[in-house]
Amino acid sequence: MFDSANLEHVVDRASYRRHVPRLREELLEAQYQLGRQARFSVLIVFGGVEGAGKSETVNLLNEWMDPRSIQTHAFLEPSDEERERPRMWRFWRALPPKGRIGIFFGAWHTQPILDRVLGRSTAAVLDAEIAEILRFERMLADEGTLVLKFWLHLTREQQRTRLRTLEKDPKTRWRVTGLDWKYSRLYDRFVRVAEHYSRRTSTPEAPWMVVSGADAHYRNLTVGRTLLAALRERLDAKPPSPAVRRSTAPLSSADSVNVLRALDLGRKLSERDYRRQLEKWQERLALLSRHSKFRNATSVVAVFEGSDAAGKGGVIRRVTGALDARLYANVPVAAPTDEERAQPYLWRFWRQLPRHGCFVLFDRSWYRRVLVERVEGFCAEKDWMRAYAEINDFEQALVDHGTVLVKFWLAISKEEQLRRFRKRQKMGFKHLRIAPEDWRNRRRWDAYEHAVCDMVDRSSTHGAPWTLVEAEDKHFARIKVLKALCAALEARLGRA
Amino acid sequence: MFDSANLEHVVDRASYRRHVPRLREELLEAQYQLGRQARFSVLIVFGGVEGAGKSETVNLLNEWMDPRSIQTHAFLEPSDEERERPRMWRFWRALPPKGRIGIFFGAWHTQPILDRVLGRSTAAVLDAEIAEILRFERMLADEGTLVLKFWLHLTREQQRTRLRTLEKDPKTRWRVTGLDWKYSRLYDRFVRVAEHYSRRTSTPEAPWMVVSGADAHYRNLTVGRTLLAALRERLDAKPPSPAVRRSTAPLSSADSVNVLRALDLGRKLSERDYRRQLEKWQERLALLSRHSKFRNATSVVAVFEGSDAAGKGGVIRRVTGALDARLYANVPVAAPTDEERAQPYLWRFWRQLPRHGCFVLFDRSWYRRVLVERVEGFCAEKDWMRAYAEINDFEQALVDHGTVLVKFWLAISKEEQLRRFRKRQKMGFKHLRIAPEDWRNRRRWDAYEHAVCDMVDRSSTHGAPWTLVEAEDKHFARIKVLKALCAALEARLGRA
Repeated sequence: MFDSANLEHVVDRASYRRHVPRLREELLEAQYQLGRQARFSVLIVFGGVEGAGKSETVNLLNEWMDPRSIQTHAFLEPSDEERERPRMWRFWRALPPKGRIGIFFGAWHTQPILDRVLGRSTAAVLDAEIAEILRFERMLADEGTLVLKFWLHLTREQQRTRLRTLEKDPKTRWRVTGLDWKYSRLYDRFVRVAEHYSRRTSTPEAPWMVVSGADAHYRNLTVGRTLLAALRERLDAKPPSPAVRRSTAPLSSADSVNVLRALDLGRKLSERDYRRQLEKWQERLALLSRHSKFRNATSVVAVFEGSDAAGKGGVIRRVTGALDARLYANVPVAAPTDEERAQPYLWRFWRQLPRHGCFVLFDRSWYRRVLVERVEGFCAEKDWMRAYAEINDFEQALVDHGTVLVKFWLAISKEEQLRRFRKRQKMGFKHLRIAPEDWRNRRRWDAYEHAVCDMVDRSSTHGAPWTLVEAEDKHFARIKVLKALCAALEARLGRA
Repeated sequence: MFDSANLEHVVDRASYRRHVPRLREELLEAQYQLGRQARFSVLIVFGGVEGAGKSETVNLLNEWMDPRSIQTHAFLEPSDEERERPRMWRFWRALPPKGRIGIFFGAWHTQPILDRVLGRSTAAVLDAEIAEILRFERMLADEGTLVLKFWLHLTREQQRTRLRTLEKDPKTRWRVTGLDWKYSRLYDRFVRVAEHYSRRTSTPEAPWMVVSGADAHYRNLTVGRTLLAALRERLDAKPPSPAVRRSTAPLSSADSVNVLRALDLGRKLSERDYRRQLEKWQERLALLSRHSKFRNATSVVAVFEGSDAAGKGGVIRRVTGALDARLYANVPVAAPTDEERAQPYLWRFWRQLPRHGCFVLFDRSWYRRVLVERVEGFCAEKDWMRAYAEINDFEQALVDHGTVLVKFWLAISKEEQLRRFRKRQKMGFKHLRIAPEDWRNRRRWDAYEHAVCDMVDRSSTHGAPWTLVEAEDKHFARIKVLKALCAALEARLGRA
């Protein structure tokens, strides 16, 4: 990967001065057009060897362009807030919205490469991390982000010279730390790991572009021109038409048995049993939520999905009834806000992830995309199809982080739904809760059923199983949810 | 993944008999159309738990359709021939050509899953294997293959019942081996690993389709109908238009320094030195080729690329001059044959891989795609762009397998090329060796130079580096190649 960058590349001062003004002007123009179109976001990632001029280049881009619509992020040691969320959370929260440019000074590649260089991980672990990163970058590209990855390179000798120069000058001496010299000693190993990493993660949608960092003029001009060319290409292109991959062949099942129809909707609980059990399980949940291990080391993400009028609200209220109001957030998921629309699909859910000791209850969730958006055609087939994999990655990140993730589907029969709709229409304030969409969704009952079964098959995993809840009887449903939630917490905390 | 398949699915005999004749007819019709169009190939992969009816289903598909254009492969213990090539070689050689159907009874998924179940590999190793498999399956899809993956599932109880039934019947008792019962005991672990594997490898382009195998009628109808629907979808679709991913942003380098221009083409060798050194290095190579470790444990794949008239033929003759004619193959790479055109791009190179103790010398190679095909526009941009990654995977497979891989680029100046062209035109038989393409290529010298530098940057790896050869002087070039080849062999064998 570094063959070209190992050569000596120099641009003399006169020629640099001649070229820069025009380049700046064109970059600014492209940046304004990007903002006006607001069709896609731009993410510029810098990686490379120590001393190759990453920070100089980042500063320069901010100087050349309008810094007001550039968000620059350096990812140093993770903060408390960041440590209490999955590893990728800090990158998700920093993603630029459509129309803007994000500059990441080091990113998700930094830690995996360093861990391998320092012998803290194996080749197989690195490859698994690379696979995760590839899925993440592909998601960004699928969501329309223009990802530009610059790798600033120095030869071993160039690096040594550079560190010496910095060290000699009292103004820059502070920048050369013991760490830099340590990496310099590890140069060969670093370059070998970086070569493997950058080759594997150079995809057509987000290739690494290797730039020699030894001569600042050459480096600046090359990065600037490459950025300009990539911006122009996307700005001038027509919006992409839908991709042409083959669609997921749906299984043509030879019978009509499915996970929803297999539920026994006749299950119920008497009023008296319900009262008794409600008290018992709410108390158990309240105790668990005060468990020291819960407060210090984990959190709960609960997803409530179900047919319209299946009683999600009632269930959620029975859960929150057991919780300290400071420790939970109830997140109703409807159409995304403008800000959320300017980001990759899952961004709005990542931003809601709880800190340790807290509950987030999603009233509807990221499954929107494979349910209503799929059935109603609100998003392209290719988009809901890739959503299964993206959702799996998201949930895997939660589970790997130690979050307790529970997912409930509240199931009622078509007849019971009609009864509840009619009852709501008659009852005073409740008729406000029947929207035209509810009747529309109801007409597509079979299509929804199909989508729900696909969803369960493709997203019920060992670490993040779906709990299908027979909700024809509200009492039964509420107790089943409370029990399952307690069980999941206990499994995570060890018996309380 | 297995939720739906864990339910009881049954199709009664009468309804089965009613549906099958029509299904068979439609499958046959689709199969003939596939053959007539010969636009894409179909690969059906079966996986699943023991006893779920994989072999019955495979037999049935052969019975229902015309077995003459179906190639069925079971992958049992690898043969000697297979063991002497990289792991994926057995699958490459079995790929169906366009217009035909291949059925793989177990495939690349089998070993990684079993290794993990039996504790012979770690989770990280499995994930690295999955990443490799994902790249392979994506390559197949990019090359137009319709990949259908059926996972035949049984619940733990269904599996037990099934093995007992087979065991009771003297006609089927032989099929139940100790191994089957062993896997039955490992059922839970197997299912957990398989769930992880199948979820990760369920991509939009090649999803797993999970089918309950407990009831043969249900299983057969479901597989048959799903296959038919997928075939029809592809047969009726218009040929896909080029994908719309963003192109690799080429680096806009701010100077004109590159790896080719950095070569010192003035290097030469006198006639006398050449004779002496030729003898020395040919003798060394001859000895190395008879080394016992070479004969039993490795092989050489050598790639010769270079500008037209750079002297590849002469270099290759100096290499083969040192070798036993039974042990090398010289493979000139020109336009692919019909048979090769009906396969994924790299197939024609996989088929040439040598057994242990042998040399294969490629006169031009798989780099065609990122050189002449890129520059002359013989393939779409998206195709040559993904070729870098596919080539890296191919070469990595060789290197991982222990093959000695050497790659030479023979570089001459534009002026020297002209001299040689003119000389050839004047000299009797040699003028046959100047084709109109040679002049055409020459006119695009700069574009080729750019393509070569990109190629070197993106495919010169630690395990498979490019050797750039200053070939202005033929003597110097020949000796440099012989030396590099000997050095690579010695590094692999330990000093001879």
